[in-house]
Amino acid sequence: MSPLVAEFNNYRERMNEVILSKNNLVMKRLWNLDTNTYEAGALDKKTKEMLGLVASMVLRCDDCIKYHLGKSHELGVNTEEMYELFAVANIVGGTIVVPHTRRAAEYWEALVNN
Amino acid sequence: MSPLVAEFNNYRERMNEVILSKNNLVMKRLWNLDTNTYEAGALDKKTKEMLGLVASMVLRCDDCIKYHLGKSHELGVNTEEMYELFAVANIVGGTIVVPHTRRAAEYWEALVNN
Amino acid sequence: MSPLVAEFNNYRERMNEVILSKNNLVMKRLWNLDTNTYEAGALDKKTKEMLGLVASMVLRCDDCIKYHLGKSHELGVNTEEMYELFAVANIVGGTIVVPHTRRAAEYWEALVNN
Amino acid sequence: MSPLVAEFNNYRERMNEVILSKNNLVMKRLWNLDTNTYEAGALDKKTKEMLGLVASMVLRCDDCIKYHLGKSHELGVNTEEMYELFAVANIVGGTIVVPHTRRAAEYWEALVNN
Amino acid sequence: MSPLVAEFNNYRERMNEVILSKNNLVMKRLWNLDTNTYEAGALDKKTKEMLGLVASMVLRCDDCIKYHLGKSHELGVNTEEMYELFAVANIVGGTIVVPHTRRAAEYWEALVNN
Amino acid sequence: MSPLVAEFNNYRERMNEVILSKNNLVMKRLWNLDTNTYEAGALDKKTKEMLGLVASMVLRCDDCIKYHLGKSHELGVNTEEMYELFAVANIVGGTIVVPHTRRAAEYWEALVNN
Repeated sequence: MSPLVAEFNNYRERMNEVILSKNNLVMKRLWNLDTNTYEAGALDKKTKEMLGLVASMVLRCDDCIKYHLGKSHELGVNTEEMYELFAVANIVGGTIVVPHTRRAAEYWEALVNN
Repeated sequence: MSPLVAEFNNYRERMNEVILSKNNLVMKRLWNLDTNTYEAGALDKKTKEMLGLVASMVLRCDDCIKYHLGKSHELGVNTEEMYELFAVANIVGGTIVVPHTRRAAEYWEALVNN
Repeated sequence: MSPLVAEFNNYRERMNEVILSKNNLVMKRLWNLDTNTYEAGALDKKTKEMLGLVASMVLRCDDCIKYHLGKSHELGVNTEEMYELFAVANIVGGTIVVPHTRRAAEYWEALVNN
Repeated sequence: MSPLVAEFNNYRERMNEVILSKNNLVMKRLWNLDTNTYEAGALDKKTKEMLGLVASMVLRCDDCIKYHLGKSHELGVNTEEMYELFAVANIVGGTIVVPHTRRAAEYWEALVNN
Repeated sequence: MSPLVAEFNNYRERMNEVILSKNNLVMKRLWNLDTNTYEAGALDKKTKEMLGLVASMVLRCDDCIKYHLGKSHELGVNTEEMYELFAVANIVGGTIVVPHTRRAAEYWEALVNN
Repeated sequence: MSPLVAEFNNYRERMNEVILSKNNLVMKRLWNLDTNTYEAGALDKKTKEMLGLVASMVLRCDDCIKYHLGKSHELGVNTEEMYELFAVANIVGGTIVVPHTRRAAEYWEALVNN
């Protein structure tokens, strides 16, 4: 695993544990529901991850983008598909999405070249 | 065509004409580029429209939502798929997306029941 | 009930029924969770509704604002408290919150003067 | 005055009076400060109104847009300049700004053709 | 003081001095007004800080969140109350608030465990 | 060139190359269009850069802000003008713009004092 990916995963897991240790029921149930949302249904898992990714891009949430990039990579999205998704995000969301696309491109390279 | 859909289309066309009549080159080229973005490529047109729709939902742009609902309907997205897309938008974007989902649901009924 | 409040409630209920009739499990569970979030806990219901309201104001979601204004009124928030909440929303979110504050003020009058 | 402009101004004035009648000091001082912000200084009034307008466009606040369109028209911004400003807003903010640009174009016609 | 808290405070103070040294009157008055907004009135200081915090969370402003976490800690908000506030922010704002909640949780631990 | 400016430019150029190497036509054309948007027309280049900057500030995109700060500096915007622009951004966008203004102030010092 590339250092960029490992660092993201480690911080995420460590802080998720802190949050879950406080036993807030709404937070726990929201996270379970989040997992269910991306399960295969009428739409397959790959499509759903791409939906979650493009939503995260236009909302400019770098950590959400990294998470969905990782999942999309696991589910077999290829680089040409990914850049077409990036294009939709940049057209809908405008040039303010460009800096987030740079960081997404860097993280995608780390996932693909590993 | 339902009155809700016709009213949206008419206003959109009328004001697009006003904007294009001013001959601003950047606006014209952006609109051409917008059309290109949703052409079939590595991803098919249906997937791209769904990406544009979920992005519009989390950004809470009612008119953008209506436009992509219309295109998604033309491209054969069914109601079960649509509500799974709505679910992704509501989980990623939170309950502030709910009022926009209500208006999307109303417009979707108008498209489907026509 | 004032016409402004009745119109909001009617549309909301009618479209919620449409959405629930599609049996999307994620949407249903998100709505249940939304209800749980505002139950009394370490924070009381009035404080939680005010938190939901100020969040809705800075995110500029008029229908969310109306909903939480209604609940806040039921729970006994008075006009002076409400305008201090409006002030926080306008300082944090800036003058783009002002038009939403106008509509909130109109709806609040409809709730209070009924 | 065109009906579109008159309706906007009337509602705005009426609700501003309601808000000011509650004597919330933070709201009053914020509104005074808002007025000061657009006074001539190192930058002239026309430039400042255009800055306020483009900010309102990318934040997609229709009523803020209408207000700054009115002021920009009074200060002599012409249609070609206005559409170059629209172009910046659409490039920075993406195609989600387009529906707001349509409504801005309609309001601008009402101001210019009066 | 924990290093995380000290680093935030130091950078904030240092850059506030740079900004104030330029003598822009609007910036100075906005900052004074910001201070007034959170003074006790019809709502007490603790409630107002919580309103400022939840608004900062849904707007996903990490530095604003840190500032209001510090103030909330000083005013006696406890961890159970804080996580109920986090829950409101995550339900209203959706899962894009989660990464900001992780950083908020880390900072809250730094405040509480010092 | 100050280290802060050099670091920004280097990362930006390096990742732009990665993105362009994938030959996504929409991304390439959007970037060309972005360049055209800021060319002199009815509005001069300095005004257009200031429009792009204030839009980036209220949308709270730090990297976009840095880019337009660099261009504005090249085009002769002075510190007093810049802080009046900062004031518009903070009034329109609220105190959530303050942390981004701190980082903008730091970067501006790096540009001016070099």
